Formats: sequence, structure tokens, C-alpha cells
Amino acid sequence: MSETIIRHATERFRNTYHQGLIGKAGSRSALETPALILDLDRLELNIALMANHAATNNIALRPHAKSHKSVAIGRLQMQHGAVGLCCATLDEAETFLLGGIDNILITSPIAGDAKMAHLADLPITGQLALSLDSLEAANAVAEVARKTKRRIGIMVDIDPGIGRTGTANAVASVELALTVEKASHLEFLGVQFYDGMSQHIEKADARATATDSGYVILQNALDAIEQALGRKVKIVSGGGTGTIEQDIASGLFTEIQAGSYVFMDAQYHAVERPQSPKFHSSLFVQMMVISANQIGQVTVDAGLKHLAFDGGNPTIVSGAPEGSTYGYMGDEHGSISLPDEYSSLSHGTKIEGIIPHCDPTVNLFGYYHCVRGDMLVEIWPVDAAGKL
Amino acid sequence: MSETIIRHATERFRNTYHQGLIGKAGSRSALETPALILDLDRLELNIALMANHAATNNIALRPHAKSHKSVAIGRLQMQHGAVGLCCATLDEAETFLLGGIDNILITSPIAGDAKMAHLADLPITGQLALSLDSLEAANAVAEVARKTKRRIGIMVDIDPGIGRTGTANAVASVELALTVEKASHLEFLGVQFYDGMSQHIEKADARATATDSGYVILQNALDAIEQALGRKVKIVSGGGTGTIEQDIASGLFTEIQAGSYVFMDAQYHAVERPQSPKFHSSLFVQMMVISANQIGQVTVDAGLKHLAFDGGNPTIVSGAPEGSTYGYMGDEHGSISLPDEYSSLSHGTKIEGIIPHCDPTVNLFGYYHCVRGDMLVEIWPVDAAGKL
Repeated sequence: MSETIIRHATERFRNTYHQGLIGKAGSRSALETPALILDLDRLELNIALMANHAATNNIALRPHAKSHKSVAIGRLQMQHGAVGLCCATLDEAETFLLGGIDNILITSPIAGDAKMAHLADLPITGQLALSLDSLEAANAVAEVARKTKRRIGIMVDIDPGIGRTGTANAVASVELALTVEKASHLEFLGVQFYDGMSQHIEKADARATATDSGYVILQNALDAIEQALGRKVKIVSGGGTGTIEQDIASGLFTEIQAGSYVFMDAQYHAVERPQSPKFHSSLFVQMMVISANQIGQVTVDAGLKHLAFDGGNPTIVSGAPEGSTYGYMGDEHGSISLPDEYSSLSHGTKIEGIIPHCDPTVNLFGYYHCVRGDMLVEIWPVDAAGKL
Repeated sequence: MSETIIRHATERFRNTYHQGLIGKAGSRSALETPALILDLDRLELNIALMANHAATNNIALRPHAKSHKSVAIGRLQMQHGAVGLCCATLDEAETFLLGGIDNILITSPIAGDAKMAHLADLPITGQLALSLDSLEAANAVAEVARKTKRRIGIMVDIDPGIGRTGTANAVASVELALTVEKASHLEFLGVQFYDGMSQHIEKADARATATDSGYVILQNALDAIEQALGRKVKIVSGGGTGTIEQDIASGLFTEIQAGSYVFMDAQYHAVERPQSPKFHSSLFVQMMVISANQIGQVTVDAGLKHLAFDGGNPTIVSGAPEGSTYGYMGDEHGSISLPDEYSSLSHGTKIEGIIPHCDPTVNLFGYYHCVRGDMLVEIWPVDAAGKL
């Protein structure tokens, strides 16, 4: 048996078993664990709330697909009026293009021969845009566009003071915009501004202070580019679930790149947002007690291989008494500490916790097990899981 | 296009592109990044060294496959005399059974109807053994064995004082061993003892003190079981790359479950082991500079989606000046801080770093890009990547 066949054949049992549970009463708790649970009622509500919020505020929505990596969820967002999707990488973009989403913005710069060859190979049908922050990248992408006889949209990425990606100052932003403007197969679409460091500032006041200093940078860059081009910049894209109130209030953006609102992970739940819609957590990890030989503590089958812990531990919401907490115990194991130190839980007990940080956790699973109430109703692949 | 086809189709470009690089001079630095690089010369040396070390010490080797998740590497270990492999989960075991490795020990207990159904469905040809720590699990597995008319080997898992899995005391160990002994379709093979908390104690003296207290627990359990059964316990399995010197010196083990020695990640490199073979780091992440607008710092395309950071950051070994350090910058990004604060690196520069913690990092990649020197020579799938 070839190696590739081995990799894919091993999904057989889980898939067949879980297909057989769809539509059966109580099937949510019959899954093989660990499993990624998606509450469709809450997901749909979150998608509708954000779509409505953007429409009410007269701003476009281009959700970031790196949060969900799912063509099915991307299609739902498009049906609710999203102008397109964001992807983080070429591999992610390829997934969504193959899935029929034809307006994609790749939000991180690319470089090098291999990525340029990959760009040339993408199955583009509608509009593909790239966010870039250097003349080298713009020239290389222009060459790909020329050779493949395509027109590629370019967004000038502006560093909000993080030092991660983006042009370092307004002069560099103008130089890049003018270079793109002059390149025959590139289209200067606008600018991107994503203040990743302000997203998780929990207190609204502190977050407003942090974002304000970034908006000054954005405003200066926009002014300089508009003066050099002699026209308004068409698209100003950026912002996220954490800063959406400030982003909209700033009046600077034409579209919002929020992603995590679809799941409302524990990290974003901790962020005060009094003026924006109340999103609900829709994504959970389902784990099971596999060892129960301790007093006041049991061991479950979900660890670092199933959860990204950079956003903290999952918040236990079902299957264990209120006040139970999850603790990390290695690649495949976690502990559940029980509030009554003399109690235990039965071997085989199913426990669910809210995902702490959605993007890197979703990347670890092959499938969403979609539920309504206590019933498994659909299974959706995480199409871009493991796509680099 | 169906969702499943989308998931698999997106590996097309990378695979075709990389196949075209095999055997070409300098192809190591032409990969699309991020990429997982495996130095075959070093891998083969590590495998031979450990096989020889075990043979010299008259102890069997049953390498843990959770470290590499690769049928190709498992086969190499078997060719070097391993008695079988360990797997952490049913999904991993399924992968290796389909790959033709027919002696597998699953080292973590299982529970619940779904996992028992999965166990019943495994394509077992040779010997499958499970490590269990409860009567509930033993009875459930006995029922699967009876129904499927198979004989399943059982190892009694003993808690070394960690409280993760394992029987809590010698009385419970004896009770479980006797229950297994009496079950018609189960075979009591021996005991498992894995002291996961001592593996990364860096100083040899402190590690010896920590392991000694565990060995007392193991010795007591063995004595009690042997007295109850009236015979020697056939297999005592456990130990790891960090504690191998102590494990062998204890004289308690018949086989060693070490896994990480094949790659010698940065975490294990920090552990003093004066009496065991000198293993070399064989596993690297290759990343690329995608943004270079800062002084003394550049941004690379490898972040939390490509590296598990529980073992620290990757150690930079090529592509950047000596003294350069990696810093985490999010799901898809890292920074490289340069030792000369006024310097930079060119856009597109390839940089490699030693993997900090191999198991959960390998889980994030679909393929090993196998090199000898600066040449890509083979591409191996990470067969059990994403297998829960």
C-alpha cells in the first residue's frame, strides 16, 4: 500500500462511524474523541450578526478564513454578503479557490521563487489580491502576472507599529503604491492595516488608546498615497474581532477582516466590546475521561495535539461539575480538576470545553462535527487544515 | 468539487514542484517554505546508535512512533531490530498497521463505545497490545476481543507518581493483572511504566534522584504481581530518550520505548546523558524572510501553525548570522533578531532552525523533505499527521 493511501485510508473508520450518527437523538455525545464540535445555531447567529453590523455601519466585510479554514463556512459568509475572503497563505488561498470562492485577498507578503511558481499555478477565476510590503515582492509578482497574463490586485501593507509586516513609513508606502500603479499587470487596490497586537487588549479604554496611535500611522500613509496618486484610495482593509468598535469608529476603513467572531473563542470572549454585537461561543473540543484513578482529578484524551494553548486552557462547559478546570498534561492528555476534591468522574465520561484560540486549534482537526442541540447534524471537513 | 477532493487536491502544487527538485544539487534551499527538513544521514546514525546501544545492554527496543508518525521511519527502526513500535492512539495504530508494521503497543488507555468500535475495526495482523489502567477498560476490551475472535495483549499501566495514567498502587495493579489473566481473549503481557515528568530534567544527578523514587513504585508493583501470578512478568516496557541511562541501569526494564532520539530535538539536546550514545539533531524547520523593513530584525513565514512552542523556540543553525534568534510573532509569522542590530537579511532568504519539540511539530506537517547535505533526496509523508 502506498504511503499516500495509508494517510488517507486511516480516516475511514471515524468517517463511517460518524456518518452513521447523523440525525440520531443524543448523537453529540456518541462521537469518537477528541472531536471538534461546531454549534451551527450559534455559528449562523454570529455570521448574521456580523453581516448586519457591517451593513448597518456601511462598511464591507471580508472575513478572514484563517480562523475557520472551511469552504462551507466561507460560503455561508459569502451568502450573507461578504465581499470576499482573506487567506493567510497561498495554500489556504488554493483551498478556497478550488472551493469556488473567487474573491480572495492573501494578507501576508510572499517571497522567493517557489512561492512565485505556486502563485502562477493558482486556479484563479475571479479576483486575487496580495498584500505586499516591498518593491522586491511587487516586482516578482508583476513578473508572474505578466507571464500568466493575469491581472493581480495589490494592497500596500502598512505596519501599525508592530514590526511584523508592512511598510515602515509613509515614504515607503508611497514608493510601493507608485511602483504597483506603474506595473502593467498589477492593480493598486488600496492598503491593508492590521493591528494584531491590539486585538486581545481586554479593557475597552486601553484598547482605544492602543488603536488610536496606529490610526495616526494609517491616516498619514493614506494622505501621502492619495496625494501622490491624485485620487482617493479605493480599499482600506483591516481590523479584527477584538478592535471592530474602534476600527468602525475611526472612519478610516472601507472593509473589515474580522475572522474569529464566527467561533468567539475564549480569548476573544475576554475582550470588552460594549458597542458591538454579542457573539456566542460556537466551537468546542469534546474529550473523554480515559483514566480515573486519582481523587479529585481525572485524565482526558485531549492535549497539545488537539488544542493550541497560547490562548490559555479550554473553559469546561459540560460533562463535569461547574468549577471543573482543564490542565495541560502532554501531547495527548489533559487533566480535569474537580471542584469537590474528594469526587471523581466515570471512565468514558464526555466533557466539552470552549476552544481557547480558534485558528491554530482548528488546524489540528480534519473535521467539524456540526451539532444542533445534542444532535450531530452534519460533518464538514476543515479543508485547509495542515495547509502551510 | 466535493469537500474531500478539495482537501487533498491542494497538495498538488507543492508535491509536483518538490518532486522535480529531488536529486538536484542545492535543492534543499529551493523548497517552498515552511518545510520540515529531515537529514537522513543523521537520522540513520541515530537509529543505528540506539539499536546498537540497546543490543549491547541486552534490552529490547520498541520505539515510540508518536515522535515521527512515519511508516518509513518505523520500517527503518524495525530493520534495525526493534521488536515492535509504540503508538499513542488508535488512529496512529491504524496508520502503522495499514503500513505493514504488525507488532504495535498502544501506550495510552482507551475508553467508551466509539473507541471500542474502532478497536474492533483495526486491521490487526500480528500482535496488538494495549496499556490499560482500569477494570472497566479491561472488561470492555475483553468483550471486543471475544466478539472479534482475536487475542489482544494487555500491559498493566503503572502510575510513576505523575497522576496522568496508570494504576494508583500495587493492589490495583495486581487486581487488574489477575482480571486480564482470567479473561479468555486477553493475554497479560506485562507492565508499562513511563515517567514522563523526568524526561526533561537537564542535570543528570537531579534526574537520577527523580527516577529512583519512581523505580521503587515499579519494583513494588512487579513484586506484588509476580507473587500473585506465581511467575515472572514477561515484559516491562517504558523509559524514554531522556531517562535511558537510568532506565537501563535500574535493571527493571525488558524494553525501552524511546522515541525522540531519532530527531534529537532541542529539548532533548539540553538533557545531560554522559553514558548514552551521542545523538545528533536531524530535524529542522526551513523558513523564509518575507518582510525585511526593520533594522536588526526580519520576519519569517513560520509561526504557531508550523512549530509547537512548548519546548521553546527553534535554534537557528543556518541562513542567518551566528547569534540570530527566533521569536514568536503569531500563527504564521516569526521574527529573526540579528546579532548586529544595524543589519538585515534579504527578502527571500532561507533560514533553518532545530525543532524545539518534535512530536507536536511533526503533527503539523504533511511531509518530511529528506536531505543529504544540500540535496533533497526523498519526500516521505508524515502518515499519522493529524490522526487524533
